[in-house]
Amino acid sequence: MKGVYALTEEIKKEDVKEEEVVETTEEVVEETNQPSELEEAQARAEEFENKYLRAHAEMQNIQRRANEERQLLQRYRSQDLAKAILPSLDNLERALAVEGLTDDVKKGLEMVQESLIHALKEEGIEEIAADGEFDHNYHMAIQTVPADDEHPADTIAQVFQKGYKLHDRILRPAMVVVYN
Amino acid sequence: MKGVYALTEEIKKEDVKEEEVVETTEEVVEETNQPSELEEAQARAEEFENKYLRAHAEMQNIQRRANEERQLLQRYRSQDLAKAILPSLDNLERALAVEGLTDDVKKGLEMVQESLIHALKEEGIEEIAADGEFDHNYHMAIQTVPADDEHPADTIAQVFQKGYKLHDRILRPAMVVVYN
Repeated sequence: MKGVYALTEEIKKEDVKEEEVVETTEEVVEETNQPSELEEAQARAEEFENKYLRAHAEMQNIQRRANEERQLLQRYRSQDLAKAILPSLDNLERALAVEGLTDDVKKGLEMVQESLIHALKEEGIEEIAADGEFDHNYHMAIQTVPADDEHPADTIAQVFQKGYKLHDRILRPAMVVVYN
Repeated sequence: MKGVYALTEEIKKEDVKEEEVVETTEEVVEETNQPSELEEAQARAEEFENKYLRAHAEMQNIQRRANEERQLLQRYRSQDLAKAILPSLDNLERALAVEGLTDDVKKGLEMVQESLIHALKEEGIEEIAADGEFDHNYHMAIQTVPADDEHPADTIAQVFQKGYKLHDRILRPAMVVVYN
């Protein structure tokens, strides 16, 4: 913004300068419709000064936009791969829920699950909390059950599928059952 | 590059124009050390034209660099998360190698493995081939075994740990045993 501001200031100054240019000799009167060499040079100087100031301001804007874009790209760079990995996490959970797993297998599965969750967390991806109040920004209600004295309305009764977010961005909402 | 080229051309033209400016009256002789109003305006015009052309060329360079950087960031955006996920794939393989898995568990593990490999592949991450000639760009030799008639030197005998690449970039080399 500073660049654009400075540009406006400079243009104002230019306008003032031009007004100060006054013809001083009588001979030039007959040539008023044809600009003198001096007037042409002055007009050219002004034109390029304005062009330069605009290019300079635009350059700063381009630089600023490029920086903002780079920061966004960096911050959300893992979004696509993370989204693609969520089904593997779901599959892992389903595998862990199978009855009659031996301790070895269970331990192996849990190790894979932990290392996946750890990898995601390192890149800013975390499970969305879904154990209190229902929030339509984070949760998707797929079913409702009647509220009662112990379970007030608009609280979460059950999580059908976990939700995940990358920093402040939702990768997918948690699918929940809500008291109503 | 076109912008910089155009700039050089313009500056050449400017130089020529300046040489054409010749004093035509005798009265000005005594003022030679003090530039006339016209000369000042011409110098200013030239100065700002050059400044403008340089700013314009620089603007194009900034834009080009920003585009190149954005493309690189896009292309390798999944690098960090992918690297962090590789140990989970290793753990999965170890879990699948355990003796006496039931068919259900095996199927579940394979499903997780397939979905992970699929997710990585969608983002450009693939296993490094390690079944032929040894290539130090892709493979790391951790052990050697004697070559013989059927196994020529510098071919891979065994893969200890799979390697992975993201497009053309190595995430980690394959750890291999090499015939020597």
